Amino acid sequence: MTAPEGIWITFEGGDGSGKSTQAALLASWLGERGRAVLQTREPGGSEVGVLIRDIVLHHRGDIAPRAEALLYAADRAHHVETVVRPALERGEVVIQDRYLDSSVAYQGAGRVLDAIEVRDLSLWATGGALPNLTVLLDIEPAQARRRLDADDKPFDRLEAEKEEFHTRVREAFLALAAAEPQRFLVVDATADPEDIAVLVRARVSTLL
Amino acid sequence: MTAPEGIWITFEGGDGSGKSTQAALLASWLGERGRAVLQTREPGGSEVGVLIRDIVLHHRGDIAPRAEALLYAADRAHHVETVVRPALERGEVVIQDRYLDSSVAYQGAGRVLDAIEVRDLSLWATGGALPNLTVLLDIEPAQARRRLDADDKPFDRLEAEKEEFHTRVREAFLALAAAEPQRFLVVDATADPEDIAVLVRARVSTLL
Repeated sequence: MTAPEGIWITFEGGDGSGKSTQAALLASWLGERGRAVLQTREPGGSEVGVLIRDIVLHHRGDIAPRAEALLYAADRAHHVETVVRPALERGEVVIQDRYLDSSVAYQGAGRVLDAIEVRDLSLWATGGALPNLTVLLDIEPAQARRRLDADDKPFDRLEAEKEEFHTRVREAFLALAAAEPQRFLVVDATADPEDIAVLVRARVSTLL
Repeated sequence: MTAPEGIWITFEGGDGSGKSTQAALLASWLGERGRAVLQTREPGGSEVGVLIRDIVLHHRGDIAPRAEALLYAADRAHHVETVVRPALERGEVVIQDRYLDSSVAYQGAGRVLDAIEVRDLSLWATGGALPNLTVLLDIEPAQARRRLDADDKPFDRLEAEKEEFHTRVREAFLALAAAEPQRFLVVDATADPEDIAVLVRARVSTLL
């Protein structure tokens, strides 16, 4: 019997879209099937990344847009090289909360930078690494907002931005998914979490 | 009388080459001539930069090479946008300890990354900003080492690297200066500091 091949799955979507819930459901389902699973996130999925995450999400005062994009890319470079690639080489399934699509959607479309440049920067950072599957949890921003309010979660710097910004981010995510249908699975994040999990499992099964 | 135009001068060279001494001598000479001077440095010349500097210079454990290059570029992007450009627009003389030539020399030539890619990354970070003058304090690494030992200065992560590495860095600095003779002034850092200062003043005078 040969060792299984590593599989890399990223979850994307706005805050309040249910990424953490779906990542946890998928991880436990894979665990029950005997697969070694590594759950991780960006930014902040490595020791160095935790320090970078603290700067980009919690620094008081503005960060220059290009500096912000470069910090996310630095976090990504270190995370992919020291966490993701080694796990994939061990044959594990890596389940990751946010990856380069978030940078392109939030910084490229949402901010003042060119989306192609932001994408190129991420691809340079990681030597062109792309996941086997990206699950986009699509939700209308006002509805995500109500979910976050109901949970009484504190807002970080990005969450505090205006609703118009979140609408541009959502459109950017959908455009990315449309451009790469073979990598993306787009699901309605307002559906029942168990129903969403079934859709995700069906697509992941094709990769196992 | 119109306001003076801003002038941007960077000092480059290995640790122990006397950059701080020359920057201070130049700043006080310009101050005596009535020019407003801003002394700054990279990494760590801004509030965000101090946090980034702490990661790149003092993190225990390896940082992936591309992550390191991206962190330096992030520091640079924020520093140029929030510190250097505003000072130049106010007509000040910016005297800066290290800039993109250090990244190219240390990371491009010294590490595993391509020098052109590291340079392009820095230029993207700053929108292509280049100083009016770059003073390269050239010194043979073993001699710089003896100076640092004599000063009993603690070594940071880069200073602790091997001498062979510093020799490659020195060669990279000299190659950069040879490629852009109009921007660079190369001086022998083993000369008397006052004699070096005279050479620097003569070149700076042509910019005033």
